[in-house]
Amino acid sequence: MAGGVSRPGETVTQRILSILAVFEKSLAPRSLTEIAHETDLAPSTTHRLVAELEEWGALQRDAHGRYQVGIRLWELGQHAGRQVREIARPLLQDLYTLTNETVHIAIRERNEVLYIDRVYGTRRVPQASRVGGRLPLHATAVGKVILAHEDEWLREAVLAQPLESRTPNTHVDPDALRAELAGIRERGYAMTVDEVRIGASSIAVPVFQREGTIGAALGLVARAEDLDTLERHLPALRGIARRIESSVGGFPMRTLAPERRRK
Amino acid sequence: MAGGVSRPGETVTQRILSILAVFEKSLAPRSLTEIAHETDLAPSTTHRLVAELEEWGALQRDAHGRYQVGIRLWELGQHAGRQVREIARPLLQDLYTLTNETVHIAIRERNEVLYIDRVYGTRRVPQASRVGGRLPLHATAVGKVILAHEDEWLREAVLAQPLESRTPNTHVDPDALRAELAGIRERGYAMTVDEVRIGASSIAVPVFQREGTIGAALGLVARAEDLDTLERHLPALRGIARRIESSVGGFPMRTLAPERRRK
Repeated sequence: MAGGVSRPGETVTQRILSILAVFEKSLAPRSLTEIAHETDLAPSTTHRLVAELEEWGALQRDAHGRYQVGIRLWELGQHAGRQVREIARPLLQDLYTLTNETVHIAIRERNEVLYIDRVYGTRRVPQASRVGGRLPLHATAVGKVILAHEDEWLREAVLAQPLESRTPNTHVDPDALRAELAGIRERGYAMTVDEVRIGASSIAVPVFQREGTIGAALGLVARAEDLDTLERHLPALRGIARRIESSVGGFPMRTLAPERRRK
Repeated sequence: MAGGVSRPGETVTQRILSILAVFEKSLAPRSLTEIAHETDLAPSTTHRLVAELEEWGALQRDAHGRYQVGIRLWELGQHAGRQVREIARPLLQDLYTLTNETVHIAIRERNEVLYIDRVYGTRRVPQASRVGGRLPLHATAVGKVILAHEDEWLREAVLAQPLESRTPNTHVDPDALRAELAGIRERGYAMTVDEVRIGASSIAVPVFQREGTIGAALGLVARAEDLDTLERHLPALRGIARRIESSVGGFPMRTLAPERRRK
């Protein structure tokens, strides 16, 4: 019942979090009416809660009176996984200097990869991801290398789900993917061409946690025609991955669980 | 009344936000008891609200059962000021490549500078700030250059406040600062030596918004003894500042208002 009465049986906390979740769906700023519509909260409730969130700085209004996530929430969010990003950043920078290619590091978050940092210059390559953005595990080099090194039950759980085709070249056949992942485990790196975006190729190596489990993946992105040059960067990629491993004890990660976050 | 009854007259939203605000005070993870103590909420209320925040992903527990900001809040926070960071990042990267010095960009947030991005390698210089961190306007090169170009009433309001000495070399005399800021406006850049941290020097230039008002400051940090080399980088610094200006329409910023955020 869009824009109708507040949903009964819901706590105020859940209502507030549902307002914040509206801004996860897309980058577009929202009007009060849109927030009420998307949360199914009564306009009066929406108005009151949004005003409190704005007063604190969790939301802020743009020049057109529309709401977007506030800079205070960005500041607060910087505390999450800070250790990983602060240790990894200068090493990503070194890898960029060595290779002159776009460098990124990603972790698994449920059944997707989440890009936690990236270093790139103005020489852009077609890229589908952004820092704080997610992509399917099966279609990206970072995702494939993580999936290849996860426990078998988790790998099978991901392969049992419907696998999205981002391009006509995305590998989506579970049996073919299972064989591809076995090859990645053996070689120790993953490569993709045109699987997420036509014109982009990528390579990634695993970053292990202290106890030996997979923690993250470190990757490079280049234009599809530069695929061969990416493989030449493997020694640099592996060297930096080892340095990240020896400095970071663990990575922030959530276990695989039923998708409930986009409600 | 630490750890006592929930404060009456406070909305649930305010209670939730006061829990999040605990994590702004320091980077340390907190136990439930510490959260209850720092928010002055009843243990039962704290337990219930923290559980809801954890369930959503706003908070997450570490291996010791202590709470820290969750990765979902980091993801959500990436939406704030995204346009600025996405446009500025490759340009900061180019500036780093040109100068091989630590590069950062900062905006004014109330009466402090807030560092919104930074590019640096493994060759570290002593630095007092971090991305998402704040420093006093009067003591940093980025802060001085912003303050120099703000409206006079705002500059005077900042100079009328108690000015913190971060080191014995921090400039804190309002009259001397007023003259220094006039010189910065004339020269078009600010420099500091040992004002925030002994052993670090910095230089910064203004980044203006489309309508001509000051939006941000772009700066370099080096070891104090390399102060002279910083001035040689002025043409590169100014060139990149102009490129940021021509790409970014406006910067996220809040007006100067009474300090109410650390309550």
